[in-house]
Amino acid sequence: MSERVLVQQLQGLADGPVSVSGWVETVRDQKKVQFVILRDETGAVQLVNPATRPVDPAAAVEPAAPQDPAALALTDLISNLSTGTFLTVTGDLKHDERVKLGGVEIKIGALEVAAAALPETPIAADSGLDKRMDWRFLDLRQRRNNLIFRVQTTLEHAMRTYWIERDYIEVHSPKLMASASESNAELFEVPYFEEKTAYLAQSPQFFKQMAQVAGFGKIFEIAPAFRADPSFTSRHATEFTSIDAEISWIDSHEDVAAMQEELLATAIAAVKEKHGAEIEELFGLEVQVPAIPFPRIPLAEAREIVKARGYEIPRTDGDLDPEGERQIAAHVLETYGHQFVFITDYHPEIRAFYHMRNEETGLTKSYDLLFNGVEITTGAQREHRVDVLIEQAKEKGLEPEHLEFYLDFFRYGAPPHGGFGMGLARVLMLLLGQESIREVTYLFRGPTRLAP
Amino acid sequence: MSERVLVQQLQGLADGPVSVSGWVETVRDQKKVQFVILRDETGAVQLVNPATRPVDPAAAVEPAAPQDPAALALTDLISNLSTGTFLTVTGDLKHDERVKLGGVEIKIGALEVAAAALPETPIAADSGLDKRMDWRFLDLRQRRNNLIFRVQTTLEHAMRTYWIERDYIEVHSPKLMASASESNAELFEVPYFEEKTAYLAQSPQFFKQMAQVAGFGKIFEIAPAFRADPSFTSRHATEFTSIDAEISWIDSHEDVAAMQEELLATAIAAVKEKHGAEIEELFGLEVQVPAIPFPRIPLAEAREIVKARGYEIPRTDGDLDPEGERQIAAHVLETYGHQFVFITDYHPEIRAFYHMRNEETGLTKSYDLLFNGVEITTGAQREHRVDVLIEQAKEKGLEPEHLEFYLDFFRYGAPPHGGFGMGLARVLMLLLGQESIREVTYLFRGPTRLAP
Repeated sequence: MSERVLVQQLQGLADGPVSVSGWVETVRDQKKVQFVILRDETGAVQLVNPATRPVDPAAAVEPAAPQDPAALALTDLISNLSTGTFLTVTGDLKHDERVKLGGVEIKIGALEVAAAALPETPIAADSGLDKRMDWRFLDLRQRRNNLIFRVQTTLEHAMRTYWIERDYIEVHSPKLMASASESNAELFEVPYFEEKTAYLAQSPQFFKQMAQVAGFGKIFEIAPAFRADPSFTSRHATEFTSIDAEISWIDSHEDVAAMQEELLATAIAAVKEKHGAEIEELFGLEVQVPAIPFPRIPLAEAREIVKARGYEIPRTDGDLDPEGERQIAAHVLETYGHQFVFITDYHPEIRAFYHMRNEETGLTKSYDLLFNGVEITTGAQREHRVDVLIEQAKEKGLEPEHLEFYLDFFRYGAPPHGGFGMGLARVLMLLLGQESIREVTYLFRGPTRLAP
Repeated sequence: MSERVLVQQLQGLADGPVSVSGWVETVRDQKKVQFVILRDETGAVQLVNPATRPVDPAAAVEPAAPQDPAALALTDLISNLSTGTFLTVTGDLKHDERVKLGGVEIKIGALEVAAAALPETPIAADSGLDKRMDWRFLDLRQRRNNLIFRVQTTLEHAMRTYWIERDYIEVHSPKLMASASESNAELFEVPYFEEKTAYLAQSPQFFKQMAQVAGFGKIFEIAPAFRADPSFTSRHATEFTSIDAEISWIDSHEDVAAMQEELLATAIAAVKEKHGAEIEELFGLEVQVPAIPFPRIPLAEAREIVKARGYEIPRTDGDLDPEGERQIAAHVLETYGHQFVFITDYHPEIRAFYHMRNEETGLTKSYDLLFNGVEITTGAQREHRVDVLIEQAKEKGLEPEHLEFYLDFFRYGAPPHGGFGMGLARVLMLLLGQESIREVTYLFRGPTRLAP
């Protein structure tokens, strides 16, 4: 590559010739001097050019000196630069305390346009979310949107590193399946060869359990999952990135929760360390590294607390509703100063058939994890005893014949095991104080959104 | 969790009480002593139990001492253990040089079965590939299969770490699209809401280019891709894991190639360091860390070399065929001692419309990368000038109207950019000397294979 210098490196360089590449954020085309703010993936810098305007010989008071055609052309080029145009500038770097933008400036020597932008930009920074999603590739040029994906990168890498240091195996489970992975509702069908039908995986649930019976011990996967969910809430998508882990030889869901809280604390600490200052600048919030252990509250107790706070949960199935989740989160924040809370001991009626049950209480060995009042995870110990599993499936009205491939996993030996699934976009949304997962998803997919 | 000890830790422990968990690999049920080989995710250990058999009082020469019912029960339990049963054993660890398996042995104190296996195992280690895929969860218990996925984990983590240390952003591009991403052939359709149709992404091509016009600079993604490819070769699947990177401000495809060779050398070195000895033991081959730079050979020259070796390529489109790829790889190995080779300068007719062309030669600024004679990658500089891009699309018979959302990316400014896509399974297959990607895919998907 050419000796391109990143904008963030400029402050550390001595005055002298440099080459920078990026896109035009603004042009101030004054009569005697032109300024261009150039942005690249690391920052913005001011470029300056003393304008050379054509002199009308008739208007000249005295005979004009001959004008430099290159200088005229450069001035003209800059006057006509449209916002968003990508270009490379070589010029002279000069440190100057008076320049607000980083204390440096580049006097333009040569300017090469890579691809010019159309003059009219279809969106502005304050356009509505839907319009911004239409033009997501322009929307993502905003500093805060770029930061979201650098935060995502750091968050994921810290999680994977946590796991890999502990000998987890990374798997890539198939997204094309012969049957449903979670429920027969919200299932995308894919016509497959010779009149067959495949289904898009709603989660890697069955396949990460398969890794346990295969003796993998501890595994993780970060991959897309699909739900034909017709809802339009700020928390749902038809395609989302699911963060999954599953481990063997646990005593209960508590072992899963203990891993997950350590994982999250580690990953959030990495984000704070690398991006904390920039998040504060661009999102106006301080990243909180959660203390371990996170508070745990059994569901029944959580409902009592919510009720005592004056909110009557309208649901009759014994679960929390979104407002109930906000209420319990408020309670936890007030009482423990904590943004996270595990809600535990769900009744089997509101849990998947494969959740293991506590023999004494009859409740499932499972939890939901709330982050700032929004559910980001369901975790559980799984039932690994095939006879019990079949009974629980029947109880839910499922026909074991349709689950044979899954039930087979447990017929040839199985360890006790459990795990969790966590929505990446929800975590990012809450970490950055956003209102919708659409803001933190590279390209959102919903019932009416398939493009770009 | 209970104080479970991993098998690989046993050698470092002093004699005394331990608890191990895993599955039964074999049982040797001798009259006076019973041996169980227990395997976990880290290794295998011999468990021993002095058998206590019921004595027939009538047959006794002298009056028998009363027998310990617990000892009788344990002996009976071990006699009836089926292969694959998962269990936890607590007992006494003893170092003993005579024990071939790691020089340690555990005398069984208590044995708790987590889930018993059916007595008949449906496959053996030497069963045919298709049968083994039917019972993949059992097949994966083999040491070498487990190793494949630990190698995969190390390989990927080394690649991600390479990128992240260089400030790449990780993206998750959508797999549900409103249009084809590569070609209209081999496209899976997904009925979407309200009579719409979505398509499964054949590659993240368009979306990783989108990150470049969004000013992300350098990105990567490791994610599933889908091809409705009816072929049954050892190198094709309908769903595969694609390793993708894309970078801005390149001068040519050579910048992409330079990144990719460094990436691969780094990742393969990490695999050799962590798993080299075990790969040698289980796959009988020594991992070679490739020297940088990899050899480069223009396609036309490669065809000449192949011809001079006595092989006439039957293809008339100017490309190599699989045998041609093997021949050029053999040439490279003989000449340079190298397992990798970049084949460069493909004619536009055999390349995608978005490959940039060299203005002097008219050939594309692209390459294929061969590893041990098999193509694992196509890389290229992309055409970022929208007018040229439209011309090239038309030349290929594509209708620009169907590409509008993609062409829009380049109308609002774009940097020069390029990248590559690489099949994870192909890399693993070749690294481990396997004959088929099916051996190194967690759960293979093909035209007639959707389960388990």
